[in-house]
Amino acid sequence: MKKPPQLPTHDSPWGKRTRAIPAATRPGPEHIDDTAPPPTKRELRLYGLNAVRAVFDKRPNAIRKLYLAEARIPQLQPLLKWCVANRIGYRVVDEEDLQKLAASSHHEGIVADVLREEPQPLTTWLRELAPGPHGALWLDGIGNPHNFGAILRSAAHFGVSAILLPKHSTLAVSGAAARVAEGGAEVTPFVRLGRDDNAFAQLRGAGFKLAATVVRNGSALFQCDLPQRLVYVLGAEGEGVDPALAAGCDMRLSIPGSGSVESLNVAAATAVFLSEWRRRL
Amino acid sequence: MKKPPQLPTHDSPWGKRTRAIPAATRPGPEHIDDTAPPPTKRELRLYGLNAVRAVFDKRPNAIRKLYLAEARIPQLQPLLKWCVANRIGYRVVDEEDLQKLAASSHHEGIVADVLREEPQPLTTWLRELAPGPHGALWLDGIGNPHNFGAILRSAAHFGVSAILLPKHSTLAVSGAAARVAEGGAEVTPFVRLGRDDNAFAQLRGAGFKLAATVVRNGSALFQCDLPQRLVYVLGAEGEGVDPALAAGCDMRLSIPGSGSVESLNVAAATAVFLSEWRRRL
Repeated sequence: MKKPPQLPTHDSPWGKRTRAIPAATRPGPEHIDDTAPPPTKRELRLYGLNAVRAVFDKRPNAIRKLYLAEARIPQLQPLLKWCVANRIGYRVVDEEDLQKLAASSHHEGIVADVLREEPQPLTTWLRELAPGPHGALWLDGIGNPHNFGAILRSAAHFGVSAILLPKHSTLAVSGAAARVAEGGAEVTPFVRLGRDDNAFAQLRGAGFKLAATVVRNGSALFQCDLPQRLVYVLGAEGEGVDPALAAGCDMRLSIPGSGSVESLNVAAATAVFLSEWRRRL
Repeated sequence: MKKPPQLPTHDSPWGKRTRAIPAATRPGPEHIDDTAPPPTKRELRLYGLNAVRAVFDKRPNAIRKLYLAEARIPQLQPLLKWCVANRIGYRVVDEEDLQKLAASSHHEGIVADVLREEPQPLTTWLRELAPGPHGALWLDGIGNPHNFGAILRSAAHFGVSAILLPKHSTLAVSGAAARVAEGGAEVTPFVRLGRDDNAFAQLRGAGFKLAATVVRNGSALFQCDLPQRLVYVLGAEGEGVDPALAAGCDMRLSIPGSGSVESLNVAAATAVFLSEWRRRL
């Protein structure tokens, strides 16, 4: 008989629904019931190995619950030991339950409920900003979680200093976006803006210039001077940046192309904009 | 009563299952039955407005069947008239049928069965290649249709001259990839390679250099000389370019980053590699 993977011993803080999992005698994955409490509004249900690991690396105290496939146990010993030491409940569950919990087949054997991190106010972010060059992304209407996740991953890769969220934007990291971001959702701080005109004034006061990224009729990215402190304003696929917002920016930039397709995908375009900014630092 | 959108009159070549749709008297969307013949291996089921329009623009004779939502009729008059003139069957169907046909909710009101275009042999492509600079993408193991589609869209945007498919690669455009490519799947020719060593020799004989794109330990893209004729070799997410293949390349390139995520997404990286090649032309 195959020896079951070793589990740290475990006292669960979840209340009656959860049983503690004995270390070596556990017979196999248990089934969760359908009434497993969904995360609250303050919580986010993450899935994907890098997404969950990134939270464990950056803010382990945010982890509230963990579900994992048996096959992940050896790999996740530090996380599981941390859960035991901090009385965070975890369960070994099967594929079907992981799919149900993640509402996705891309769970990669791990699902976690974690506390959301609230965006910080722009004033706070600017006050604590280190001297020198900084890049930021102003997200105007990005909704698709795949694009959002890919943008967060690129933002992390290129060392962007903030993701700026307009005052009334409901955009927030979802499980799907965090999975696609491959850990990038935990890297770049989120900043909540006030009214657009106030945000423009504050950012300019701190030496930033704002560049609206547009599909056509912008200045060619490769020929433009880019400031050391730069906010790229990104719009949704199809709609683009709101015209009034774009009109208020210091520049309008496009990525020159063959014209044989209407535009690049917004996440691909973001990677190009960021790499060009980074290249010139 | 709302006047139904005007449909060109129509004689169907589909055989018994299809009824001709009378021009103005049609009461509303009809339901297709579940036995609607699936596309053959030589055919591809496309969906999405730009994907289908691109085929109509580039090779209308490839269109075999068309299904559309009633709301799309006014917009698609040229296509529908062409179908009538060329005895290509089309049907106005409802949302549920479009979802079923596309096996996706991203159908955007249109589904089409079209003939696949066979990749051309490398010898043919090289023989007919115009003088001057050319960029190409060698796809080593890209499988995910979202990444593949996004790569095709970027390749079209940056004017890549060919998508190179290794001898035994089973990669082919799917409906999902074509939808994500937003028309880009019809822009760049596909080329079938022979054995890797022969392909390397032929490409080098035509003045190309091959650059393996790697997540780490490559030369920094921004500091490298890039040749005017360049093949970027791209590997799958996670696995990357096959080490033996990478070892045979003329250079290994990486996109410098902060190190806070393992890598960029392969489609985002491709956009950056292509934009940097294009920028230097």
